[in-house]
Amino acid sequence: MTFVAIVPAGGAGTRLWPLSRRSHPKFLIDMTGAGRTLIQATADRLEPLVDDLIVVTGSAHAEAVAEQLGIDREDLVIEPSPRGTMPAIGLVAAIVEQRYGADAVVGSFAADHVITDAAAFQGAVRRAIDAAQEGLVVTVGITPTGPDTGFGYIRQGTETSVDGVFGVEEFLEKPDLATAAAYVESGEYTWNAGMFIAKAGVLLDALARYKPDLAAGLRSIAARWDGPDRGEAMSAWDSLEISVIDRAIAEPLAAEGGVATVPVSMGWSDIGGYDSLAAHLVDPESGISRGGARQSVMVSESEGSVVYAHDRPIVIHGIPGAVVVDSGDVILVTTREASSGLSGVVTGLTGDLEPLR
Amino acid sequence: MTFVAIVPAGGAGTRLWPLSRRSHPKFLIDMTGAGRTLIQATADRLEPLVDDLIVVTGSAHAEAVAEQLGIDREDLVIEPSPRGTMPAIGLVAAIVEQRYGADAVVGSFAADHVITDAAAFQGAVRRAIDAAQEGLVVTVGITPTGPDTGFGYIRQGTETSVDGVFGVEEFLEKPDLATAAAYVESGEYTWNAGMFIAKAGVLLDALARYKPDLAAGLRSIAARWDGPDRGEAMSAWDSLEISVIDRAIAEPLAAEGGVATVPVSMGWSDIGGYDSLAAHLVDPESGISRGGARQSVMVSESEGSVVYAHDRPIVIHGIPGAVVVDSGDVILVTTREASSGLSGVVTGLTGDLEPLR
Repeated sequence: MTFVAIVPAGGAGTRLWPLSRRSHPKFLIDMTGAGRTLIQATADRLEPLVDDLIVVTGSAHAEAVAEQLGIDREDLVIEPSPRGTMPAIGLVAAIVEQRYGADAVVGSFAADHVITDAAAFQGAVRRAIDAAQEGLVVTVGITPTGPDTGFGYIRQGTETSVDGVFGVEEFLEKPDLATAAAYVESGEYTWNAGMFIAKAGVLLDALARYKPDLAAGLRSIAARWDGPDRGEAMSAWDSLEISVIDRAIAEPLAAEGGVATVPVSMGWSDIGGYDSLAAHLVDPESGISRGGARQSVMVSESEGSVVYAHDRPIVIHGIPGAVVVDSGDVILVTTREASSGLSGVVTGLTGDLEPLR
Repeated sequence: MTFVAIVPAGGAGTRLWPLSRRSHPKFLIDMTGAGRTLIQATADRLEPLVDDLIVVTGSAHAEAVAEQLGIDREDLVIEPSPRGTMPAIGLVAAIVEQRYGADAVVGSFAADHVITDAAAFQGAVRRAIDAAQEGLVVTVGITPTGPDTGFGYIRQGTETSVDGVFGVEEFLEKPDLATAAAYVESGEYTWNAGMFIAKAGVLLDALARYKPDLAAGLRSIAARWDGPDRGEAMSAWDSLEISVIDRAIAEPLAAEGGVATVPVSMGWSDIGGYDSLAAHLVDPESGISRGGARQSVMVSESEGSVVYAHDRPIVIHGIPGAVVVDSGDVILVTTREASSGLSGVVTGLTGDLEPLR
């Protein structure tokens, strides 16, 4: 069996500005102080599982991705323009189908998530691969740690023939708080982290049923990918339909019983903002969340603060939940609560400080 | 008539840390962005009035004071140890008495106050000098802008023979808020800013009545000041009684009817902390209080914030009354309200960051 990881490295969001910005989005940064950038940590986690790993990214970050992963730029799939997750994942699936055959299994894993329990992740992916070999499209579902309203949910059904893999009854949009609480209470729902594992042929055949033009377009590009015409083939990219894999395949196929899920607890976070980043930065000595340089930081009467130091000490007094980020070229001062509204503040910035939109 | 200004340059307080600290107290800093340090601005304001200006300071800051004012170190009065305002002001008065005679008028003006209306200040001092020549000890009283509980108050009586100069009935300690409000409401009270103007002989003769040993000690040092024995004469300094001019002279002399006051509105502040500094930093363009370098500063949902930038832009979001100070070697993040409790936070710091106690 051949297993190829697809790693979409893109994404938007101003909520982690100025750490994450247009010139260096969070997947290129060591956000948690682990010593590896998020995309390096993603590759590290997948390394024991994969025969190949293909990153899909924009041209702006291709050079940095290639350098951080120690690969050639030609081994990347570079999107001429962002068209959503379906064309990105679908093109790599089609390339894998060409190279390794329709039975090769692909799995998509975002480049900017944090997973603290790599062994649990690898176990879940192995079970997902087993179920994918049965012809299912399999998603990894995150066991909720609370009634979060920022994620879509997966309602799971009965166990499949593969241990620990369950049918998916439905994908649900981001709920309100009461609904989220009911989901979590029931124990039948997990968070949709956007990880899909399937045979390349299964994925593309499903797409061919729901969006035949898109599937044909992707397979046509893939047929010329590993040859002299790659550039010309990609000229068709900008005419492909913009779509996301959840809408294009996962939801309609789940309604037909073709999707399964592996629920897992693995310390997952998409670190969408300073509030969710905080949990990954708690310094046991100080009790506060610390990132950045090993500068002296003093915090008083400011419980739950998040601090990124650069080249000078930081003193915080009397602001619970403060967020203070010295990125070296700019200083952000806000609170965990207020930081969700950061977009409107920094959206007009240009040059080096331009946020990732 | 000879008029000599006495400028005590000392003072303590951690509430403006890290701008003001042991190695560079606030009188050595351009706190308001006016282009002059506070002691330079003090000298500038006095320049049209004085025949001479004598600074009293500790040895730690003598060099910086001399350099900032463009004077010789020998022209300073350097205190071997801090013993309160009475010995400091009294010694300079005794030196002036020796040099210019007992009828020369002296006036003491702290080096670290802000006065925005220099013309009003100069007019008030001129009236005070007139009254001092009548043999009174005259204090400049600040017309209150609100019921501040951080200052002592002066209760004024009837007008003296000098226009705009009133008898002082009583000096009052820092009041509680209700008392302060009643003072302000009555229109008969001003803030005591510690500025005293009197003939050198009048001041020392009054001191000789209340504290004869101290007066004799000061006159004895002064007699040898302008000669080869200055150093030896100052060896008596550390045995002088520690005292402040308000207690030593102003209060008992007021009870005898020997003190007068000139009430004045002149945009005065002792900028005791970030809250009172804020009013002197309001940038009409941004509406926020800005000091430090001309760096870009963005403030949203943070009304009344105080920002000192250094070498990088600062973005503040969602913290009303925020205080963000980048001094170049340390970053302070607090609020105007919480900043009054800064002492307890920074008191343990040593080295360059050591606060002024």
